Amino acid sequence: MSQFKFTLAATDGRARTGAIDTPRGTIRTPAFMPVGTAATVKALYPEQVRATGADIVLGNTYHLMLRPGAEEIAALGGLHSFMNWPHPILTDSGGFQVMSLSKLRKMTEEGVTFQSHLDGSRHLLSPERSIEIQCLLGSDIQMQLDECTPFPATEAEAKKSMELSLRWAARSKSAFEAQPHRTEGMALFGIVQGSTYEPLRKASAAGLQEIGFDGYSVGGLAVGEGQAEMLRVLDFTTPALPENKPRYLMGVGTPDDLVESVARGIDMFDCVMPTRNGRHGLAFTSRGKVNLKNARHAADKRPLDETSTCPAARDYSRAYLHHLIKSGEMLGSMLVSWINVHYYQSLMAGMRAAIAEQRFAAFVADFKAAQAGGDIEPL
Amino acid sequence: MSQFKFTLAATDGRARTGAIDTPRGTIRTPAFMPVGTAATVKALYPEQVRATGADIVLGNTYHLMLRPGAEEIAALGGLHSFMNWPHPILTDSGGFQVMSLSKLRKMTEEGVTFQSHLDGSRHLLSPERSIEIQCLLGSDIQMQLDECTPFPATEAEAKKSMELSLRWAARSKSAFEAQPHRTEGMALFGIVQGSTYEPLRKASAAGLQEIGFDGYSVGGLAVGEGQAEMLRVLDFTTPALPENKPRYLMGVGTPDDLVESVARGIDMFDCVMPTRNGRHGLAFTSRGKVNLKNARHAADKRPLDETSTCPAARDYSRAYLHHLIKSGEMLGSMLVSWINVHYYQSLMAGMRAAIAEQRFAAFVADFKAAQAGGDIEPL
Repeated sequence: MSQFKFTLAATDGRARTGAIDTPRGTIRTPAFMPVGTAATVKALYPEQVRATGADIVLGNTYHLMLRPGAEEIAALGGLHSFMNWPHPILTDSGGFQVMSLSKLRKMTEEGVTFQSHLDGSRHLLSPERSIEIQCLLGSDIQMQLDECTPFPATEAEAKKSMELSLRWAARSKSAFEAQPHRTEGMALFGIVQGSTYEPLRKASAAGLQEIGFDGYSVGGLAVGEGQAEMLRVLDFTTPALPENKPRYLMGVGTPDDLVESVARGIDMFDCVMPTRNGRHGLAFTSRGKVNLKNARHAADKRPLDETSTCPAARDYSRAYLHHLIKSGEMLGSMLVSWINVHYYQSLMAGMRAAIAEQRFAAFVADFKAAQAGGDIEPL
Repeated sequence: MSQFKFTLAATDGRARTGAIDTPRGTIRTPAFMPVGTAATVKALYPEQVRATGADIVLGNTYHLMLRPGAEEIAALGGLHSFMNWPHPILTDSGGFQVMSLSKLRKMTEEGVTFQSHLDGSRHLLSPERSIEIQCLLGSDIQMQLDECTPFPATEAEAKKSMELSLRWAARSKSAFEAQPHRTEGMALFGIVQGSTYEPLRKASAAGLQEIGFDGYSVGGLAVGEGQAEMLRVLDFTTPALPENKPRYLMGVGTPDDLVESVARGIDMFDCVMPTRNGRHGLAFTSRGKVNLKNARHAADKRPLDETSTCPAARDYSRAYLHHLIKSGEMLGSMLVSWINVHYYQSLMAGMRAAIAEQRFAAFVADFKAAQAGGDIEPL
């Protein structure tokens, strides 16, 4: 398989299931991509991430360009080999984290100049440099550089920002096609912006399709607008995207966000939530979130979720997980991150099966009832 | 197997190999016990610890009595079940860490009163309470409360301290025999003190044997006296201990310390060195210590040790390990701790085989040559 190819296998309402073939393997959709910021999905071995059912992980261009550096990773054989993850990798453009993490950043038509948050060194991130970095990393699915429009934005602000992203989209596409480090089967996604404004989202989607991409991301959501508003935007945004290309909702979200977004035709997700919360003892389960720091677990011999197929949820008591988290022990972060990534992957697998079997509405109803039911009673 | 039993299989010079049978499994000796301070061998899953070849881990009474508490662990089914480690566990008496970690401690003939370093709560650790705690934890091999004589000490100071430990040894034995929480096959070890003074060590060893223990620990070493002095003390201490009981050198040490101490008839060891150093990127290998923080590894694609059977030493590049440690990523601590515990267990397995095959002197020579040879040349 040397081509990038998306195949829809089934739809159920607007929900879709299918597969993305890449030279490094197949991604079953809807897919959740654990975030491997600095070339590691925090607190998990790569084999574990794979065993939870993840077909693809995300790498952060901003972090990797600063440490160890894109050219450095290329010299070491690329990101897959570097992080011992031979399966597909998607990279972001770096733009989002430049704006949220770096110092003294300055945006111009050309791109963004900024100082590293690590050592103060100066860098330029342009559409062309972002693509070059992503190709040097060897990323299978790359993102155009865009501006993630802050929320709230006036329609005029959102329009100006969206149009900049469209111009950067065109430059990204040209750079991608000309990139000497690009290899067969690498894919480039455009990113729909336009804040919460329907005409802008539609114009963005249309403009991107005119340029032509291997897939379409929805950016600028989960930035403070709230779930209802996010879903309202998806309601008019996904229909503006082509059926035959994957759709990726960036940086989302809670289990409920994933289910609601799949119901609106989204195929791919990434989010730090399962790992970040896991490190702090907040577990995601079929019965909703469980805060293992809570004293109610201190004397509870029961496992977190005896129905889980994840050893971390099944083979350790709540009392032990509570103890580890309270004690700041690394094993606590390791176990709860594992539980969470496993739960997210199980949720995606459940959605894929339900869509294939035309019972997605029932799946959603069951999911919501179980989440609303809450955790088992305290002892 | 419901009895505690030590069987010598072979000796080679003063080095010994054999097995300690306990109700929870067999401990092959010489044995290295990874330290599971707060009911976790830091940064490792219990299955991993087992897979490195560890037959037994150590739990710290001081940490566990303060959090989550001995009665609390007993109510949860004991330490083995709590930490998901069904194999043998040895516990210390808590005395050493009361002296090194707690606040406002006060030692009397009765025991030590102290304030918790966690919350300032007041506690008494007496020989009787230490045994009660260790029985509540369900520890397979328990230690008498002793005073770890500081180094340096005058002979008069060391004598006074050793005699207190002997009195506490007798009280520990009585308490152990009377303990309602004690179960069949639990063992109690006495601890030889006496600083660096041969007459005191011999008096301590004789006094302990008069009381009678299931095994004999050598305490008060690796406290600043240096390796040469430690080995000199072992030279006259181990011959003063009975042949038919296990001998445990507490808190030791480097790979070279282990080899030299096995050569002097020691059967058991514990030390935080492999895990503590692992967390900070210092790896133990057959070619000596390797500091993965060092810039020489930044562009080195080679694994740490391609001859290792540990996946962490074989499947990841030095460049990646360097990157993880420099970035403060948990996976760095996880991988290097794994490498180190694996190396320590391999070293013990190598010594056991060499003693069984009467080639321990050659093993020691090979070990020393390899360690002295140092790491592979930089790229």
